[in-house]
Amino acid sequence: MNLNLFAEANESFDEAEFVIYGVPYDRTSSFRMGSRWAPMTMRKVSYNFETYNQDLDVDLDDVPIHDMGDCDTYVNVDETLEVVYERASEIVKAGKIPIMMGGEHSLTYPCVKAYNEKIGFVVMDAHCDLRPEYGGVKHSHACVSRHVIEDLADKYVSIGIRSGPKEEWDYIRQNDSIKVFTANQVDSMGIDSILEEADSYLAGCDRIYLSLDMDAIDPAYAPGLGTPEPFGMTPRQVRTVIRHFAPRTVGFDVVEISPEYDSGDVTSVLGAKLIREFIAAKWKSMQQAKNI
Amino acid sequence: MNLNLFAEANESFDEAEFVIYGVPYDRTSSFRMGSRWAPMTMRKVSYNFETYNQDLDVDLDDVPIHDMGDCDTYVNVDETLEVVYERASEIVKAGKIPIMMGGEHSLTYPCVKAYNEKIGFVVMDAHCDLRPEYGGVKHSHACVSRHVIEDLADKYVSIGIRSGPKEEWDYIRQNDSIKVFTANQVDSMGIDSILEEADSYLAGCDRIYLSLDMDAIDPAYAPGLGTPEPFGMTPRQVRTVIRHFAPRTVGFDVVEISPEYDSGDVTSVLGAKLIREFIAAKWKSMQQAKNI
Amino acid sequence: MNLNLFAEANESFDEAEFVIYGVPYDRTSSFRMGSRWAPMTMRKVSYNFETYNQDLDVDLDDVPIHDMGDCDTYVNVDETLEVVYERASEIVKAGKIPIMMGGEHSLTYPCVKAYNEKIGFVVMDAHCDLRPEYGGVKHSHACVSRHVIEDLADKYVSIGIRSGPKEEWDYIRQNDSIKVFTANQVDSMGIDSILEEADSYLAGCDRIYLSLDMDAIDPAYAPGLGTPEPFGMTPRQVRTVIRHFAPRTVGFDVVEISPEYDSGDVTSVLGAKLIREFIAAKWKSMQQAKNI
Amino acid sequence: MNLNLFAEANESFDEAEFVIYGVPYDRTSSFRMGSRWAPMTMRKVSYNFETYNQDLDVDLDDVPIHDMGDCDTYVNVDETLEVVYERASEIVKAGKIPIMMGGEHSLTYPCVKAYNEKIGFVVMDAHCDLRPEYGGVKHSHACVSRHVIEDLADKYVSIGIRSGPKEEWDYIRQNDSIKVFTANQVDSMGIDSILEEADSYLAGCDRIYLSLDMDAIDPAYAPGLGTPEPFGMTPRQVRTVIRHFAPRTVGFDVVEISPEYDSGDVTSVLGAKLIREFIAAKWKSMQQAKNI
Amino acid sequence: MNLNLFAEANESFDEAEFVIYGVPYDRTSSFRMGSRWAPMTMRKVSYNFETYNQDLDVDLDDVPIHDMGDCDTYVNVDETLEVVYERASEIVKAGKIPIMMGGEHSLTYPCVKAYNEKIGFVVMDAHCDLRPEYGGVKHSHACVSRHVIEDLADKYVSIGIRSGPKEEWDYIRQNDSIKVFTANQVDSMGIDSILEEADSYLAGCDRIYLSLDMDAIDPAYAPGLGTPEPFGMTPRQVRTVIRHFAPRTVGFDVVEISPEYDSGDVTSVLGAKLIREFIAAKWKSMQQAKNI
Amino acid sequence: MNLNLFAEANESFDEAEFVIYGVPYDRTSSFRMGSRWAPMTMRKVSYNFETYNQDLDVDLDDVPIHDMGDCDTYVNVDETLEVVYERASEIVKAGKIPIMMGGEHSLTYPCVKAYNEKIGFVVMDAHCDLRPEYGGVKHSHACVSRHVIEDLADKYVSIGIRSGPKEEWDYIRQNDSIKVFTANQVDSMGIDSILEEADSYLAGCDRIYLSLDMDAIDPAYAPGLGTPEPFGMTPRQVRTVIRHFAPRTVGFDVVEISPEYDSGDVTSVLGAKLIREFIAAKWKSMQQAKNI
Ligand SMILES: [Mn+2]
Ligand SMILES: [Mn+2]
Ligand SMILES: [Mn+2]
Ligand SMILES: [Mn+2]
Ligand SMILES: [Mn+2]
Ligand SMILES: [Mn+2]
Ligand SMILES: [Mn+2]
Ligand SMILES: [Mn+2]
Ligand SMILES: [Mn+2]
Ligand SMILES: [Mn+2]
Ligand SMILES: [Mn+2]
Ligand SMILES: [Mn+2]
Repeated sequence: MNLNLFAEANESFDEAEFVIYGVPYDRTSSFRMGSRWAPMTMRKVSYNFETYNQDLDVDLDDVPIHDMGDCDTYVNVDETLEVVYERASEIVKAGKIPIMMGGEHSLTYPCVKAYNEKIGFVVMDAHCDLRPEYGGVKHSHACVSRHVIEDLADKYVSIGIRSGPKEEWDYIRQNDSIKVFTANQVDSMGIDSILEEADSYLAGCDRIYLSLDMDAIDPAYAPGLGTPEPFGMTPRQVRTVIRHFAPRTVGFDVVEISPEYDSGDVTSVLGAKLIREFIAAKWKSMQQAKNI
Repeated sequence: MNLNLFAEANESFDEAEFVIYGVPYDRTSSFRMGSRWAPMTMRKVSYNFETYNQDLDVDLDDVPIHDMGDCDTYVNVDETLEVVYERASEIVKAGKIPIMMGGEHSLTYPCVKAYNEKIGFVVMDAHCDLRPEYGGVKHSHACVSRHVIEDLADKYVSIGIRSGPKEEWDYIRQNDSIKVFTANQVDSMGIDSILEEADSYLAGCDRIYLSLDMDAIDPAYAPGLGTPEPFGMTPRQVRTVIRHFAPRTVGFDVVEISPEYDSGDVTSVLGAKLIREFIAAKWKSMQQAKNI
Repeated sequence: MNLNLFAEANESFDEAEFVIYGVPYDRTSSFRMGSRWAPMTMRKVSYNFETYNQDLDVDLDDVPIHDMGDCDTYVNVDETLEVVYERASEIVKAGKIPIMMGGEHSLTYPCVKAYNEKIGFVVMDAHCDLRPEYGGVKHSHACVSRHVIEDLADKYVSIGIRSGPKEEWDYIRQNDSIKVFTANQVDSMGIDSILEEADSYLAGCDRIYLSLDMDAIDPAYAPGLGTPEPFGMTPRQVRTVIRHFAPRTVGFDVVEISPEYDSGDVTSVLGAKLIREFIAAKWKSMQQAKNI
Repeated sequence: MNLNLFAEANESFDEAEFVIYGVPYDRTSSFRMGSRWAPMTMRKVSYNFETYNQDLDVDLDDVPIHDMGDCDTYVNVDETLEVVYERASEIVKAGKIPIMMGGEHSLTYPCVKAYNEKIGFVVMDAHCDLRPEYGGVKHSHACVSRHVIEDLADKYVSIGIRSGPKEEWDYIRQNDSIKVFTANQVDSMGIDSILEEADSYLAGCDRIYLSLDMDAIDPAYAPGLGTPEPFGMTPRQVRTVIRHFAPRTVGFDVVEISPEYDSGDVTSVLGAKLIREFIAAKWKSMQQAKNI
Repeated sequence: MNLNLFAEANESFDEAEFVIYGVPYDRTSSFRMGSRWAPMTMRKVSYNFETYNQDLDVDLDDVPIHDMGDCDTYVNVDETLEVVYERASEIVKAGKIPIMMGGEHSLTYPCVKAYNEKIGFVVMDAHCDLRPEYGGVKHSHACVSRHVIEDLADKYVSIGIRSGPKEEWDYIRQNDSIKVFTANQVDSMGIDSILEEADSYLAGCDRIYLSLDMDAIDPAYAPGLGTPEPFGMTPRQVRTVIRHFAPRTVGFDVVEISPEYDSGDVTSVLGAKLIREFIAAKWKSMQQAKNI
Repeated sequence: MNLNLFAEANESFDEAEFVIYGVPYDRTSSFRMGSRWAPMTMRKVSYNFETYNQDLDVDLDDVPIHDMGDCDTYVNVDETLEVVYERASEIVKAGKIPIMMGGEHSLTYPCVKAYNEKIGFVVMDAHCDLRPEYGGVKHSHACVSRHVIEDLADKYVSIGIRSGPKEEWDYIRQNDSIKVFTANQVDSMGIDSILEEADSYLAGCDRIYLSLDMDAIDPAYAPGLGTPEPFGMTPRQVRTVIRHFAPRTVGFDVVEISPEYDSGDVTSVLGAKLIREFIAAKWKSMQQAKNI
C-alpha cells in the first residue's frame, strides 16, 4: 500500500495508457471548501478495491496506469489553471488518456483546453455552472460549463442538472446547440433513453471529454460535497453514463468531493470506484478496437 | 451571507407572506437529543442553494419571506409550547403562513392550535406519535399526533408510518376517522395513488397544516435524526407530497433533525431544501389564484 | 435502558429461544478495522426501536431472548474462533437459535461449525470471500465463504456479490454446486425472482445458516463499514431475504459494521433493526408451526 | 476483551471489594446531553490500560472488582434516582465500595444517601451546583451539591469551582460550614496547600464520599463534556486529590462525560484512568491497614 | 435560548455600551478555511455559561450588550472589508465598544480603521502577519499586522508570536517602533513581566484596540483553528492579557476559530468565554471610573 | 502544495542530507489501529507551517530534504519490517539521515538495525514496550524497546514512561545498563535535569537513534493516538529533548499517531512540527560543525 499512488497506478509514464493526477485546489468554491483534500483521499481509499472488474472482465493490474502525483497549486486560480493546462497538455501530447482528480470544477477548463481543438463535452453535474463570472472571478467553479461551451467544445451535453439561477436556465433555452438533461428527466425517462437522445445529438462526435462533478449524485450516496443538492442521480445511473461514453472518451475527471464533510469516506470511495469503472470500460473498448 | 436569517428571508414581517422561525427545543426527545441545533443549521445551509426553482419557475428572491429568529425556550415543555403558541398565533392572525423549524415534534401542537379552529392535519413521520403520554410527559414528541387528533384536527392523514407499539396500531385500526399510509404502502402503491386516496378522504378540507417529521425519510438520505428508522420514504416522494398539498396548506413545519448525528449536514440541507420547495409551491399556487 | 443488553433481550438463558452474543474482534480485516466496536454499538442503538413489529404482528417483548454478552477475544484469530465455537456450540446444543453480532466475517466460520453437520449456508455480501488464505492467514475475513463451502455447508447461496479477484469468479464458475447472485442480478431480476431461484437450488434443505455481511448493502444505507463497495443492495431487499429464509434458519449473524466510519450510527441502527426483523420473522414461523 | 465489563472487573459480587456500575442517564443536563453514553465508553477504553500501577505498586488483576452493569433508567429523574439509591444501598450494605459511572451529576445524590448517615463529601467540579432547583426540577444536575449539603453531608469540600450565579457564591460566603476552593486558588496556591487546608477542615471526618464531575478538569484534557468551562484543573492535580482522599473514601463516582463531544475518546480515557487510580490507591491503603 | 443572539446580548443598540457582531468570512485563509462558521458557533456555546463572573464580581445580565447579527459578506475581500468598516464605524461613532467575532484576521483592519485616528494596537497571535501581500492579495489574513502598523496604529504590541518567514522577523528587528513578545518569552519570563514591559512601551497610549487571533493559544486548548501552531499560550495567560488591557481597550475582536476542526466546540467555548471576560473586565473598569 | 511530498522535501535523493519516508502499517497495534494513515496526514499538515524556524535561525527551504514516499507494506509484520530495513539501509548507506514517519512503533526496529552496528537509542514513549512478545507476535508494537535493547543498542534511554505490566518494571529495575525516566520524573525534576543525567549515562555515545512515540505526549496535546495515556509530557519538553540530542542523532522517527481519533489533525500537526524541529536542529549543528 503506497498511499502516494492510486492503486494499480504503478506503471511508468512512458509505458502508461492512462495517466492519473490530482489538483488539490478549491479556492473559488462558493459554499464549502475542502475539495483540495480529495485527491489524497481517493488515492487512500482506492486500496479498498479488488483489481478485477467482473462486469467488464478487466483486471486493472493488466492495465498500464501511471499516477503523476499532484500539481502544484497557487492561491490565484488563473496561475493554478495554467499549471493544470501544462500537465494536461503533456499527457495529451504523449497520446495518453488523462484522468484528473479535483479539486474543484474550475479545473476542468484547462483539461479540455489541452486538446487544442474543439471536442465534445459531456458533464454530469447538479449545477448549470453557466455563469460568465461569480464573485468577480471568471474561472470560478460555478462558471466552468459556460467557458467550456464558449471556448472549447463543439458539442455540450449535461446530465443530472437541477440547480441554477433563472439566467442560466434562460441561457439553456436560448442556446439550442447545447443539450441538457435534468435529474428529473433522468428519473422519469430512464438513463437509457437519455443516452439515446444524447447520442443522436452527439452524432459524429467521436472525441469526448467526460467530466463528473460528484454533486450530480444524490447526497445519500455522496454526502462529502461542497454544494450538495438533493434529488440527484444514483451511482448506477452514473456508471451507465461512464460505460456508455468511455469508448469515445479521451479525457476524464472527478471533481468537487469534499472529504471533510464525508462519512466513512464513502464519497471518495465512490469517486475512486467510478475512476476505476472508467479505466476498465475504456481499456476494454481499446482492446476490442485492437482485436477488430 | 447573514447566518442569522434563512436565505432570501429578508422581507419585513409586515410585508411578508411567509414567516419562518425556529424553536431550539428537544427536551422530551426519547432516544437522542440535539434537534435544538437544527434551526441554526438549516439557516446556515440554506445559503447552499440557488434562489430559483426551475421546476416551478419561482424565484425565492421575488417571494416576500421574513425570518423572525428563534423563540425563547424553557426547560419545561409546557412553558416552551406556550411561547410557540404565541408566536404562531401572531403570524396566523397577521394572515401570513408560518413555517416552523424544530426542534422536536411536540412543537407542532401549538402551531396547529394557533388556527383556533379544527383544520386538516397531514403529517409525514416514521412514528405513529399516538401515545397519550410518554415517560409521564403529555406533550412528549412521541404523542403529538394523538393530541392533534383529539384536540385540534378535523381530518388526520399520516404518511410514511412504520413504527409504533401495538397500542398505537390498535388505535389506528379502531379509529376510522383517521387515515394512515405506511412506508410500505408508499413503496408498493406509489406516492401518486397514496395522494389520490388521501385526497378523497380529505374531500372538502381546504385548510391543511402540513408537518414533516424528517424521520419519515430513509436514514440514507437523512442520517441526522434523533430516532432514525430504516425502510423510509425517499426525498422525491416527500417532495411530491409537499407540492401536492401546498395549495391547501396554511402552515408548515420541519422537525426532528439532529445535526450532531449528521454527515456533511446533508439532513439539514434536505430539510432546508424542502422548506424552499414548500414556499415555491405555495407561492406559485397563490400567484395562480390571483391570476384567475 | 441497560446498554449491556440488546433491547428486549432480558430473558434468562434457560428460558430463551434466541440467544444473542457479540464478538468484538476485527484483526484480520483487510482495509479498515473497527468492527470490534459493533456489538456494543448495536446494543446501544437497539433502544431506538419500538418492541412491536407491525408488519409481522410480533412484539419482541413477548419473545424469549437472552443476551450472553461478548466473547473474550485474543490477538490471534484461531484462538478467538475457538472461543466463538464454544459459545455457539453451547447455544446450539441447548436447542436455541444463536445470533452473533460481529466483529468481522471470519467469525461466521465457527458459528456454522457449531452445528456439527453439513447445513445450508446463505450469505449476503459484497465480496466473494472465496480466497483460500489472505496475507498468510487462513481464517481471514476475506476467506470465510471458501472455508464454509469446503468444510461446513452442503448448499451455498450468496446474494449481493460484486467484488472479488478473477480467481474467485473462476472458482464460482467452475463450482456448480454453489449458487451466486450478484448485486446487478438483484437489481435487474428483482429480489423475488432471485429467491425463487435460490429456493429451487436449496430444495430439501430445511436447516439454513444465514449470514449478513453488512457490506452487501449499498454504502448510502450503510456507510459504517470496513470495506464499503458501491452499487449494493437496498435494506428492503435484505429484509425480504431475511423474512424469506427465517423459517428455515437455525442461526444468524450480522458482521462487518465499523461504527467509527459511520454517520449518526445509521449502519448500526440498520444492523440492529435487521436482527430484530430476523427474530420477529423466525418467532412468527415458530408460533405458526406450533399452531398447526 | 469483554466490552460489557470494565477491564479487570471480573470478580463476582460476593467476592468483590469494589463494585462498579453505570447509570446511563442525562435528562436534566442544562446545556448538552450525552453523558448517558459515558459508562459504555469508559468500559470500552478501560481496555487501553495495563493492569499494573507502578506509582502505587498495585496490580488491578489482584484486586477483587465487580462490574454490576448499568442501572435501568427512566425518563423521570426521580424514578431514576430511586433505582440508583437501591443499587448503591445494596453495595454499601454488603460492605463494598461502590464506584458509580454517570451519567449526569444529579445521580450522585442517591449514592451519598445510601450511607444512611451524614458523611463527608468532597467534590471536584467547575460548577457550584448549589441551586435549590433548575428549570423547575429539584434534582437537576445543577443542584446536586445543594441537596447533598442540606440533606446528606456533615462536611462539604469543593475543589476546582469557577462557575455559578451570584446567588451561589453568596450561599458559599454565608455558609461557613462548607469549604470551597476555586480553580484559581488551586492554580495559585498549589494543590498540596489546598489539601492541607481541606484536611484541617475535615478533621475527624474519616468517611468521605468523593465525587468527580469531569468538568472540574480543563477542557484541553477533557473536551467531551456537557458544560465545558475553561481555566480548569489539570489531570495531575485531580490525581493528587484522589490519591490523597482515597484512604478515607467509602464511595466514588465519575460523572458528566459526554462522549459525543469528545476527540479520540480522551475524556473517557481519562475518566477510566482516574477510576483505576482511585481503586489502586484505595486498595493500597486497605492492604496497608491490614498489615498494621 | 435564542441562538441568533450572543447570550445576554439582548439590549437595544441605543442603550447598549457593548455591541457584538459577526463576520462570516474566511476566503483569504492560507491553509484551512471555516472561520466563517465561528460567529454562529460562539453564539451557540455562549449559552453554556453562567451570567455572573465571580472573579470580577460582574453579572453580564446587568451589562448593556447588543448583538447586531452578522455583516453581509462578499466573495471579494475588499468588498467585505468595506462592509465591516461601515459596521465598525457606526458603532464607534455611537460611542459604543465594538466586539467583532470573525471570521479571519484580515477583518481586524477595518475595525481599527474605524477609529479614524492612530491608536494603540495589541494583538495576540502565533503568526507575525507582517507580509505586505500573500498570494497576490493585500488584505490576506497573513498581512493584517503589517497594514495595521503602516496605516492605522501609533503603537504596536504583539504577544505569543512564534511563526513567520525570515523577512517578517527581519522586519521586526529593523522596526524598533514595534514591540513583539514571542510565546517562548511568555513561557520563560512570565506573562506579568511581559505586560510590564508592554506597559512601559505603551506609556501614554490610553486608547488600545485589542485583537485576539485564537491561534495565539496552544492547540491543546484551541484545536479548532485554520493554522494551528504548537508551543502556544495558555488560556490563563490570555485572560491575564485581556484583563490587563481592558480598561484602556476601545475595541476587541476574536478571530480565526474554525469550528469544523474542533472537538466538542471547545475552541468556540473558549473564544466565547474570553469575549465574556473582556466585557466583564471592561465594564468593571467603566463602573470604577464612574465611581471616582 | 503537493500533498505527496512533505513540505520543503523537494530535493533529489542524491543531493539530500535528510530523507523522509512513510510506512503506512499498523497491524500489530494492541488497542486502536489507524497509524497507517499518519504519513499522509503529516505530509498534508506540513503545509501549515512557515519554512523558517526563528528560534534556530534555519530556513527549511535551504535544507536539502528528500521525501521518498511510502514503503510498500504487507499484512505480515515481518515482511513489512524487511521492506523498511531495506529502505532504511539504502538511506544510511548513502550517508544521509533517515526520518521515518510511522505507522506503529514496531517499525523502529529495522530503522535501528540499518546502522549495522550497536548505537545509542533514545526513545520518548508512554509505554515500556519491553515485552518479549505480545499476542504471539514478536515484533508487536508493544515489544520494540525490548528487541532494540537486546539486539541493536549499546545504550538505551527512555523518557516519559508511565505504563507497563509489573514484569516490564522489574526488567527495568534488574537491568542497570538501561536508563529510564518516567513522566513523573520529568514533571518533578524538570527536563533539563533529566537530560543532564541522560548525558552522563550516554557519555561517549556520539551516534544516537532518536524515536518519538507520540503517546509520550499528554493526550491534551496529542489526542489522535492508538493508546493514549494520561499524565504525559508537554510538547515543549519533547522539543527540548529533540533539540538536545539532534547533534548526535543519526536517525529519527515519529510513530503511533492515529489520525482517525484526532481533532483538527492537531496530533499530526504536532508530529510534523517536531520533524521540522529535528531537521532544523540537526542542520544547524551540521552547519556549525562545518564552520569550525
Ligand atoms: Mn460543477
Ligand atoms: Mn456541481
Ligand atoms: Mn414525530
Ligand atoms: Mn418520528
Ligand atoms: Mn464478507
Ligand atoms: Mn464483505
Ligand atoms: Mn456538577
Ligand atoms: Mn460541572
Ligand atoms: Mn493572525
Ligand atoms: Mn495566526
Ligand atoms: Mn511505543
Ligand atoms: Mn507508546
